[in-house]
Amino acid sequence: MRPPSQTPATSVRAASGPAASAHQPARTLARDLAAALPGSTVRLQGWVHRRRELATVTFLVLRDRTGLAQVVVRSGPGSWSGPGSAAPQVPPEETTVEVTGTVTANPQAPGGVEVTDPAITALTDAAETPPVELWRPALTAALPTLLDHAAVAWRHPAQKARWEVAAASLRGFRATLDAAGFTEICTPKLVGTATESGANVFPVDYFGRPAYLAQSPQFYKQQMVGVFERVYEVGPVFRAEPHDTVRHLAEYRSLDVELGFVRDHRDVLAVLRDVLAGMADAVRTAGAAERLGVEVPEVPAQIPVLHFADALVLVGAPSDEPDLAPGHERALGEWALAEHGSDFVAVEGYPLAKRPFYTHPEAGSGPAPDGALGGVAGGEPVGRPAGGPGGARWSNSFDLLFRGLELVTGGQRLHRYADYVAALEARGEDPASYATYLAAFRHGMPPHGGFAIGLERWVARLVGAANVREVTPFPRDLHRLVP
Amino acid sequence: MRPPSQTPATSVRAASGPAASAHQPARTLARDLAAALPGSTVRLQGWVHRRRELATVTFLVLRDRTGLAQVVVRSGPGSWSGPGSAAPQVPPEETTVEVTGTVTANPQAPGGVEVTDPAITALTDAAETPPVELWRPALTAALPTLLDHAAVAWRHPAQKARWEVAAASLRGFRATLDAAGFTEICTPKLVGTATESGANVFPVDYFGRPAYLAQSPQFYKQQMVGVFERVYEVGPVFRAEPHDTVRHLAEYRSLDVELGFVRDHRDVLAVLRDVLAGMADAVRTAGAAERLGVEVPEVPAQIPVLHFADALVLVGAPSDEPDLAPGHERALGEWALAEHGSDFVAVEGYPLAKRPFYTHPEAGSGPAPDGALGGVAGGEPVGRPAGGPGGARWSNSFDLLFRGLELVTGGQRLHRYADYVAALEARGEDPASYATYLAAFRHGMPPHGGFAIGLERWVARLVGAANVREVTPFPRDLHRLVP
Repeated sequence: MRPPSQTPATSVRAASGPAASAHQPARTLARDLAAALPGSTVRLQGWVHRRRELATVTFLVLRDRTGLAQVVVRSGPGSWSGPGSAAPQVPPEETTVEVTGTVTANPQAPGGVEVTDPAITALTDAAETPPVELWRPALTAALPTLLDHAAVAWRHPAQKARWEVAAASLRGFRATLDAAGFTEICTPKLVGTATESGANVFPVDYFGRPAYLAQSPQFYKQQMVGVFERVYEVGPVFRAEPHDTVRHLAEYRSLDVELGFVRDHRDVLAVLRDVLAGMADAVRTAGAAERLGVEVPEVPAQIPVLHFADALVLVGAPSDEPDLAPGHERALGEWALAEHGSDFVAVEGYPLAKRPFYTHPEAGSGPAPDGALGGVAGGEPVGRPAGGPGGARWSNSFDLLFRGLELVTGGQRLHRYADYVAALEARGEDPASYATYLAAFRHGMPPHGGFAIGLERWVARLVGAANVREVTPFPRDLHRLVP
Repeated sequence: MRPPSQTPATSVRAASGPAASAHQPARTLARDLAAALPGSTVRLQGWVHRRRELATVTFLVLRDRTGLAQVVVRSGPGSWSGPGSAAPQVPPEETTVEVTGTVTANPQAPGGVEVTDPAITALTDAAETPPVELWRPALTAALPTLLDHAAVAWRHPAQKARWEVAAASLRGFRATLDAAGFTEICTPKLVGTATESGANVFPVDYFGRPAYLAQSPQFYKQQMVGVFERVYEVGPVFRAEPHDTVRHLAEYRSLDVELGFVRDHRDVLAVLRDVLAGMADAVRTAGAAERLGVEVPEVPAQIPVLHFADALVLVGAPSDEPDLAPGHERALGEWALAEHGSDFVAVEGYPLAKRPFYTHPEAGSGPAPDGALGGVAGGEPVGRPAGGPGGARWSNSFDLLFRGLELVTGGQRLHRYADYVAALEARGEDPASYATYLAAFRHGMPPHGGFAIGLERWVARLVGAANVREVTPFPRDLHRLVP
């Protein structure tokens, strides 16, 4: 037995960077093939995207993470280390292979370059025929088929590019906030009480006790404003949505932001503007949107803002409507584009009674006149309906519409402990149930606010997908828990 | 009613960047006070970190997200817009305030600068006395007290700095991988089957059907290697850990990486080395570790690697031990530091039978001789015990120890469909239960591998916290579901 202080020199080996064998060149990515020296030997790795067998030649289109490369296989033995044959042989589509060959200029090949005289080695067993034809320019299978076979269907370059839009968006989101002094936080997804409301929560058996999946990080991100002033989180949120719609998922990615020392929700909206611009820039840089042929929106320096009451007038809705219907949102999106050349429009001042209890009332909104929500309009210029009993009518909250679809909800929150107690009691809730959350407000919180962006909705709207499931790798809904 | 095409000019307002009122200067952060021009007027915002009342002067130490600033309040009316008094008045500790005053050089003040002649405005009601004394240099309260009052206790500068280490680590993790061609993915946390094993899963009532919280993104990140080759995810993982230890949580943050076209687990370890170096660099840059007085590790260009069998010899353990005990890990950590000057050491080749079914066997490890795990050692140089029935003894997997504690588990995975079927059947499991996961392997997967870093363990070890709960804002365990 060797004591711990003695080096077993023969068995200690170092984990270091890539050390390609002296006999084989480093891997070349498909993207970099066009820049390789004609006549040089390259080593490619990837999937057989497509094989086309002609009389004396077989074309192998190889796919790797950066794109496609054309490999020309001429007749002769040894072109593939599979079962021997005189005819050119290429493993079936989706088999992973390594190809070593010669860089050869060919103006007709993609990128002007192809690989000739290849030695092809299969890295796995020959792949079974995929459930969808990945080599075709567009996936034609129906959505349920794509979702059932997600692990393979996402390999299609156009599908893959959709997620690259999502990944770039996350990069842009974080980069913008990191530069603005925000701190990333991680808050628990297992919680003891519902966050947003008692409805639509998933119950969990937590060591024999009841728990829930967090519907949002709302309470925690607010508490963390007390620590870091400016925080963000990217994480899953869970909604037991009983609705089967094209815009709801049971689990989705929420891009949450919260910041302190704001004057009102307009300061929050200004941060949202910068975040969206950062996301759009990152998507543009990634190039995935270009490959998909979709237009990345220009985020205007100033996003147009409408008051809720004025928005109702604009879309011709009754002045006592408590919310905007999808048709209203579309009309507002068209209006923003026509009048302001903007893909974005914010609607502020949503009726306080329709917003969560932590929502800050609109300054000067004043107590509501007698009459319940939806009752006869008071004497306001545009007929603003009444808010909660005894409270203000309007709130310092907003929705942001992107191309006519609600993408973001945000606003200013209450920051005084007494206001929380009053707001909860006005809704018939017991403040004691929120004791640990409210502790932050008993011990000093700044005026603050924030917002949450739904990643899937953003990507769907950006790439023109009608259903958020089309841009979600493994969606979860009322009917779907696998794959 | 105005039609949608008409601009309601009076109600459209722009959401733009910060537009400080002409009457008040832009906010100055505590960090930037030292660079402010003496004699100039500044506006600070933050918390009353400490007030010290002397006979004719009161010191207000203001805390904001960047640090502390000293404000000097002399006798006289109007120094605080609270209840009037002739004596200097400062709101109680933790109240959020705005302070406008004059920048004054004072060599004895922190940073050589203080603010004099202040006008102090409380932004909230006076704060109640916090449950822990946040103004003291160190928090002395017991861990349960800190956890019960997390929303307030995390405001302490030293506690806050611990999470800043975590946030910087996440930045470094992503930056390293983004630069190396990895794609960030988001995989579902609600799953239909257990990922790692049937034990320790949290059951969820999913629209009346059984579901589980994902124990890891393992299956999904592997499938996504088929799409992007190189992927990572930062997300919550859930373990219904029945153990009450200082290193286990029921919910923690897993930093998951998976990459294709590797030769074996050594390529995976090389990426892990770069990721750890990137995380350490980001922590160093953030300065939080420096404020905590902790040493950020230098990640060696080559992390020392020991084979599991040799590690047993090194620590003097019996050659038929199937795993490394915490004491063994500590001894290996000491060995790596003494012999290689490294805070890190990797142990490779863990017994295959002790690793998950998807683990790739060690090349040349060969089938095990007759005899169950823990049986009589065979003819191997260091007495390596037998692996699973009929399978190889050793695996291409590793654990990485950081300062003597297991921080990362990783390795090469199987990539052939037939190997998965055999591995599952050898363990008495039905491959049909894994159909959607295995589909990826039927349709071509490259040799691949990956690893998972536990964020809380990394931070705890880095800052010298004995318990992972000390660095987790809102920990979840057998006993704790709130706050």
